[in-house]
Amino acid sequence: MKIARFSSGEDPQYGIIDGDEIVVLQGDPMFQGFVTTEERVGLASVKLLAPVIPRSKVVAVGKNYADHAAEMGGVVPERPLLFLKPNTSVIGTGDAIVLPPDSRQVEHEAELAIVIGSVAKNVRAEDYADVIFGYTIANDVTARDLQKLDGQWARAKGFDTFCPLGPYIETEFDWRDALIEARVDGELRQEGNLSEMIFTIPEIVAYASRAFTLLPGDVILTGTPAGVSPFSSGQTVDISIAGLGTLSNRAR
Amino acid sequence: MKIARFSSGEDPQYGIIDGDEIVVLQGDPMFQGFVTTEERVGLASVKLLAPVIPRSKVVAVGKNYADHAAEMGGVVPERPLLFLKPNTSVIGTGDAIVLPPDSRQVEHEAELAIVIGSVAKNVRAEDYADVIFGYTIANDVTARDLQKLDGQWARAKGFDTFCPLGPYIETEFDWRDALIEARVDGELRQEGNLSEMIFTIPEIVAYASRAFTLLPGDVILTGTPAGVSPFSSGQTVDISIAGLGTLSNRAR
Repeated sequence: MKIARFSSGEDPQYGIIDGDEIVVLQGDPMFQGFVTTEERVGLASVKLLAPVIPRSKVVAVGKNYADHAAEMGGVVPERPLLFLKPNTSVIGTGDAIVLPPDSRQVEHEAELAIVIGSVAKNVRAEDYADVIFGYTIANDVTARDLQKLDGQWARAKGFDTFCPLGPYIETEFDWRDALIEARVDGELRQEGNLSEMIFTIPEIVAYASRAFTLLPGDVILTGTPAGVSPFSSGQTVDISIAGLGTLSNRAR
Repeated sequence: MKIARFSSGEDPQYGIIDGDEIVVLQGDPMFQGFVTTEERVGLASVKLLAPVIPRSKVVAVGKNYADHAAEMGGVVPERPLLFLKPNTSVIGTGDAIVLPPDSRQVEHEAELAIVIGSVAKNVRAEDYADVIFGYTIANDVTARDLQKLDGQWARAKGFDTFCPLGPYIETEFDWRDALIEARVDGELRQEGNLSEMIFTIPEIVAYASRAFTLLPGDVILTGTPAGVSPFSSGQTVDISIAGLGTLSNRAR
């Protein structure tokens, strides 16, 4: 199922995408289950919002594709390299990425995002699916110059609007094999396959939940393939994963 | 005023500490103002909870005392070095710091914590007080071995229970001059004065709010003086700041 969070001018609502329509749900299905209403709205008539606002945290994994680790001049890590992005950095598809005046080099990073569905601590790798609500696309926007300057990545990756998520959450998704790509104004910049991840989804969920209690609505970004590149004001970054649609954000 | 968040067996409540009693408030004063009730409870008869649970983030500043920067083998940074701790790491005074099996060297870091009271973005240093709700004590608990191993500090400083806050929030506090110390089983380990901070509270609020929108309930940790040291299971870490009381946590 494709779960959308959307607005038609009033408070955010949730629904199941059915072709070019949305079947409206009663409340947030993560907490209230999939209770459908009689109401249907046209997909084109609403604004899609970030499909989830993490109540606690966005955990991210650095250097999880060998070709990207190489392009960053680093080695493949022996364990998942975790960092955090604040929930104030989350926006949805169609929202603007606001380029901060303190950076001269803001880059896209196309990533698969895991949306956690239940409280998770010390999850065994084989039980990973029990705690996952679904999957969506993320752009781990990064001020590359500030990332190098600071050493710690919190600021460079944590600016407001630096975590586009969407366009929707897919509850049934095979992460073992799917194309992932990023385009800037239509030009292909990143191209990879989720099968190339160094640490797999079960390993990442197990490892992250060993450090932090994960809460429903928390999001884990799983790393980016090679080809990260700068973009500038007025340009549009489209990130696609086969089966998850396209996350599209214009910079300003 | 000293604001406590506490439990007497039921849902968390808020109150104003008045000697050895608490004047119970109607709801969270950060959002509902200081509306007192007729009810008073004995301070000794309740359990103090973390005075705030950050809805969004704990921002922290690294190496903000020259003597600590030196003991870590680093130089004094040219700008505040920001990192993030997840809200799942927050506990209150009296709660246990749980030592993770993955670390063999967990250390205390005594810090002044700022509690943000209103939405704050691009705050000017001279307006810093407008967005602060109050101040409390923090222990920026750190798995020193994992901090060095990972490079990024999210895991080493983000484990569950690694952000003790409390015992209460003081709304009127002069951060310009106050003794800060940490004791392990009563033995003095850290001793400093808030006046020794490299970046002051107005500078930190301005800088952090330039990167992130700060939300009511967000917390900023302001760095630790020299003397950080390991502690082990069964030991109690007491952190005191003159005017803010003592934050006490036992490790297990």
